[in-house]
Amino acid sequence: MAILSALATEVFIPVAAVIGIAFAVVQWVIVSRVKLSPAAAAASGGGGKNGYGDYLIEEEEGLNDHNVVVKCAEIQNAISEGATSFLFTEYQYVGIFMSIFAVVIFLFLGSVEGFSTKSQPCTYSKDKYCKPALFTALFSTVSFLLGAITSLVSGFLGMKIATYANARTTLEARKGVGKAFITAFRSGAVMGFLLASSGLVVLYITINVFKLYYGDDWEGLFESITGYGLGGSSMALFGRVGGGIYTKAADVGADLVGKVERNIPEDDPRNPAVIADNVGDNVGDIAGMGSDLFGSYAESSCAALVVASISSFGIDHDFTGMCYPLLVSSVGIIVCLITTLFATDFFEVKSVKEIEPALKKQLIISTVLMTVGIAVISWLALPAKFTIYNFGTQKEVSNWGLFFCVAIGLWAGLIIGFVTEYYTSNAYSPVQDVADSCRTGAATNVIFGLALGYKSVIIPIFAIAISIYVSFSIAAIDNAGGIAEMAGMSHRIRERTDALDAAGNTTAAIGKGFAIGSAALVSLALFGAFVSRAGVTVVDVLSPKVFIGLIVGAMLPYWFSAMTMKSVGSAALKMVEEVRRQFNTIPGIMEGTAKPDYATCVKISTDASIKEMIPPGALVMLTPLIVGTLFGVETLSGVLAGALVSGVQIAISASNTGGAWDNAKKYIEAGASEHARTLGPKGSDCHKAAVIGDTIGDP
Amino acid sequence: MAILSALATEVFIPVAAVIGIAFAVVQWVIVSRVKLSPAAAAASGGGGKNGYGDYLIEEEEGLNDHNVVVKCAEIQNAISEGATSFLFTEYQYVGIFMSIFAVVIFLFLGSVEGFSTKSQPCTYSKDKYCKPALFTALFSTVSFLLGAITSLVSGFLGMKIATYANARTTLEARKGVGKAFITAFRSGAVMGFLLASSGLVVLYITINVFKLYYGDDWEGLFESITGYGLGGSSMALFGRVGGGIYTKAADVGADLVGKVERNIPEDDPRNPAVIADNVGDNVGDIAGMGSDLFGSYAESSCAALVVASISSFGIDHDFTGMCYPLLVSSVGIIVCLITTLFATDFFEVKSVKEIEPALKKQLIISTVLMTVGIAVISWLALPAKFTIYNFGTQKEVSNWGLFFCVAIGLWAGLIIGFVTEYYTSNAYSPVQDVADSCRTGAATNVIFGLALGYKSVIIPIFAIAISIYVSFSIAAIDNAGGIAEMAGMSHRIRERTDALDAAGNTTAAIGKGFAIGSAALVSLALFGAFVSRAGVTVVDVLSPKVFIGLIVGAMLPYWFSAMTMKSVGSAALKMVEEVRRQFNTIPGIMEGTAKPDYATCVKISTDASIKEMIPPGALVMLTPLIVGTLFGVETLSGVLAGALVSGVQIAISASNTGGAWDNAKKYIEAGASEHARTLGPKGSDCHKAAVIGDTIGDP
Repeated sequence: MAILSALATEVFIPVAAVIGIAFAVVQWVIVSRVKLSPAAAAASGGGGKNGYGDYLIEEEEGLNDHNVVVKCAEIQNAISEGATSFLFTEYQYVGIFMSIFAVVIFLFLGSVEGFSTKSQPCTYSKDKYCKPALFTALFSTVSFLLGAITSLVSGFLGMKIATYANARTTLEARKGVGKAFITAFRSGAVMGFLLASSGLVVLYITINVFKLYYGDDWEGLFESITGYGLGGSSMALFGRVGGGIYTKAADVGADLVGKVERNIPEDDPRNPAVIADNVGDNVGDIAGMGSDLFGSYAESSCAALVVASISSFGIDHDFTGMCYPLLVSSVGIIVCLITTLFATDFFEVKSVKEIEPALKKQLIISTVLMTVGIAVISWLALPAKFTIYNFGTQKEVSNWGLFFCVAIGLWAGLIIGFVTEYYTSNAYSPVQDVADSCRTGAATNVIFGLALGYKSVIIPIFAIAISIYVSFSIAAIDNAGGIAEMAGMSHRIRERTDALDAAGNTTAAIGKGFAIGSAALVSLALFGAFVSRAGVTVVDVLSPKVFIGLIVGAMLPYWFSAMTMKSVGSAALKMVEEVRRQFNTIPGIMEGTAKPDYATCVKISTDASIKEMIPPGALVMLTPLIVGTLFGVETLSGVLAGALVSGVQIAISASNTGGAWDNAKKYIEAGASEHARTLGPKGSDCHKAAVIGDTIGDP
Repeated sequence: MAILSALATEVFIPVAAVIGIAFAVVQWVIVSRVKLSPAAAAASGGGGKNGYGDYLIEEEEGLNDHNVVVKCAEIQNAISEGATSFLFTEYQYVGIFMSIFAVVIFLFLGSVEGFSTKSQPCTYSKDKYCKPALFTALFSTVSFLLGAITSLVSGFLGMKIATYANARTTLEARKGVGKAFITAFRSGAVMGFLLASSGLVVLYITINVFKLYYGDDWEGLFESITGYGLGGSSMALFGRVGGGIYTKAADVGADLVGKVERNIPEDDPRNPAVIADNVGDNVGDIAGMGSDLFGSYAESSCAALVVASISSFGIDHDFTGMCYPLLVSSVGIIVCLITTLFATDFFEVKSVKEIEPALKKQLIISTVLMTVGIAVISWLALPAKFTIYNFGTQKEVSNWGLFFCVAIGLWAGLIIGFVTEYYTSNAYSPVQDVADSCRTGAATNVIFGLALGYKSVIIPIFAIAISIYVSFSIAAIDNAGGIAEMAGMSHRIRERTDALDAAGNTTAAIGKGFAIGSAALVSLALFGAFVSRAGVTVVDVLSPKVFIGLIVGAMLPYWFSAMTMKSVGSAALKMVEEVRRQFNTIPGIMEGTAKPDYATCVKISTDASIKEMIPPGALVMLTPLIVGTLFGVETLSGVLAGALVSGVQIAISASNTGGAWDNAKKYIEAGASEHARTLGPKGSDCHKAAVIGDTIGDP
């Protein structure tokens, strides 16, 4: 038995979660001290001794402080209202879909034993009786809805905090980059800690409540808990797709007409699509990503719990061992809390150039601390030896072995992050080469960008492959890697995305790299959990059922991408035409004397994303059901493996290509080196070619 | 036993091959009747009653017939010389690589039994003795070299015929589109029939010669024969990559500066890269594709022979059954001969619009006739029941079952062809939508084009999956499908590519669709043959060794694409700079009074492609060796399955995206419908955006 008692575990997890929530509240309070009222702003005005501040001041030239603050507040309100109303509309539609899906899940799981209310012999120990399938179906549906709601709340709160903090960050930026950075970072931390802690606490409570019914039947208990992960990730899917279509359509529309045709700056209030664009950033990059992170987090935890429930922990009823995945998350919260202090209190960022290194330092500190944390918790919570059931065979695993698995996943994530940085930061040659290719036009820019994305897949795939192999060899699992990464990284990614506006895009890209890397491991974990549960012992590629599953599965990400790209494309077309129409028909719009019709642009994005989000969502959610029902578990395993294997490649390459195009454009715009200056300035043919690449790859 | 005796088989195969060669010679003679001397041309001049002729005449306005013919002959000579000299350089380098690889193969296979010269017990019947591994290694190396040489000769002859026929087609075009079409079609047929027949005859002779040594040891015999397929496809790899880099670099360079910057037409003699561009078309699309087709043909035949050799045919020494793959090819030659007559003699093409339907009719006629042909040969050559050994288990198959497998592969190919046409022909909405997206610039064009490519993957993958599944279920094989397709289709593709200059690109794209579809089935066949041979009975995705193989394998096509795209990109950059330099520094070049320096452009393409073709080639050829040696057969199976599954998706989507961009541009240029005219004319912003897409996706 482990050193940590079951009681200590029962206490430690909620305490860690509460600390996380408390920390989030403290950060919120600090952010809210920046007043969006003229008085406070007047007292603090006029700073701006550095690059970032200068930029703002230059933009607002000719306006006094009072006007700046009022204008900021106005813009914030417009954005916040737009985002809120979009999310409500989105959630209505998704709500309907989720309710239908909940019924489907209930019927599907309930029908397994013909809606019997009698107890059944357990799968893993035939001499015991487990709870009837009908009740497990019911509890699964409940946890599915819980997961969906938690995800929805996470996304919504994240959006609220982001819009709340946006204007404040802008105002703080006038006092110096350090202040702006800290404000952005803190608001990111609010979202990150809230998300991780509330996810943990809801999961913890659900387990304990369900346990009242299930008692000793942990197999059924954790089977029903998987609904939580499914709910979280289904919600995330819609949030990501809907928000993604929204933000891309608005962004492409705004940029193509505004920047390329009319030569007005990004986010210029004269652009009719500017509010839609900013709303898009909030609903797509914040709310969507928030849901997404929560989804991955919930899924990885649930997958790990399922594996644990059919290991010796589940069978011997070792509660501490069972909760190991949740303990790792709890440690993650504490570690991230300490790491955050490094950024906000222990060090100070003084110039724009220091932002990227500061975030990189965060990454390294958290990885190192987390490694120590996992070592401690593995020693405390796990018995020296235990058994994991690996597809019909048993494997004895030691506690240090499991620690090693989790740690390797964590470090693989760090490596993927650094590779992503290398390929997407304009400090290194890949992006500079892409920028250079703009000399010969948009076509070569596109070719080089795509080639860069393809190339950037190589090392991450090897990192993932090695971590899978090691984890599998040592512990016959690969779940733990995913979880640790999630727990440790979700805050980081959140923070990164929010710091985006203050820093470059590279950090956001690193975050994406992590997200993809861990998404791959999480998918694998889910896949593993699925086959364990389904009682599949062999998924033989040589069997035609599996092989066609594999090839069709590998096609699914293409199908999905085709759907979403087409949606973005048509929405962007409509947006471009509307923006052009407004520029052509509203007199005085270019002079700033007439107000553009922001609302129509917002409506175009909203309608498009709501309408277009359903088919891709349905594709992803219904495929497993349909394939499983019609072709059986073997083919379904093939489909899942194929989709996983092909999806991770597309995701990494697309994300890095987009990041590289974006930064190549910025590299030319900034003109920081001699080489960059030969390509510029803004508005040159090179720059125009770079803008086209950026538009294609816009995240 | 089958109806067809062993003797009849021994006679039928070479007779069919000889008929094929004879037919090729006849076609050659007919093509060569078009004289490239002024006298004949003068007699025939002045025709051109139709669209295509008009176009030519318009181009040559102000020149008399004598000059046209002389100029044609001149250009042809320049192109032919350039192509020949490039191919010789390429073959020198490839020759070195192939020799090294031949030594590696010999050492690798020879070392299996420690270079023993003693006979070993056979794998499949332990009571018999088979020939020593050392000799099988020797014979494999010999057949490897034979395959490589046949492939090389096929490519070279194809190039020679194409350059020979190019100018003649152009001259015939002056007499009407029908004449031009028939000339192009005949020259395509020369290459197609020569390739298929010589491949068949060399394979047939090799089998019979090797049999003198091997006697009753058919297992060893057909194992050593696989070297033929490997040699053919290795050669094809280099031909395709080298030629591909050459043609793309030249094309991108020529188009970007000539068409976009200088507004001069495609293939204008004032463009310094024009000769390099045309040489590229010949070495890339003709010689490269010729090698490629031969490679697929040889590989599929060898894979099928291996499967046959370990079926009851091999074990019972049923020679007719053993030769079933070759008999299918022989029938294919006869069927294609008849089909060709439909195009050249039974019907006449009268206008440009009739070309696409005529080629489509060819496709349908050949598929229908081939289905009948396969039915007949299956009934004649196969016993009513026989046994196939499927990864350790036995499966009884009937002759009609095997017929059904072959036929389904054939029809899957037809479906893929039609889907490809739908997505890449400008007669249908997908391409029109892409053209429409050019309204809003190159960025939306790129997004729509990529989305189209992704979408076009869906149906072909289902077609492939179904044909795999059916074949596997009925006969435990999937090889036959691939072979039939190859045999039936290789001529078609050849013809299509050559008719390209006269017709649209759609037909070329259909050809590519076939090529990819059959490449997928061939790869699968090879994969099947590999695992049969390696004695692998289960490739379990759940085993970490296989899974990491799968994920790394799926990454390989990206790595490969990144390499070749980067190569093309840098070569194109150099080309663009050179072309710009010439336009800027050579006075009188735009007026046509000074001759551009064609040779430097040819040299840039040559150097780039020779230098850049080695790393991707090495990647593909060495990966199986390295993975197999270091990680074993299981991981290698995973890598192959992953590469196959992910490669087919990338290939289909990339090829269709490219085709769609190309035709969207043509759609705007042609302005045949009201919709198209709103997007044009040439030189408009829409058209420029379309040109950028075309350049990115240039085949």
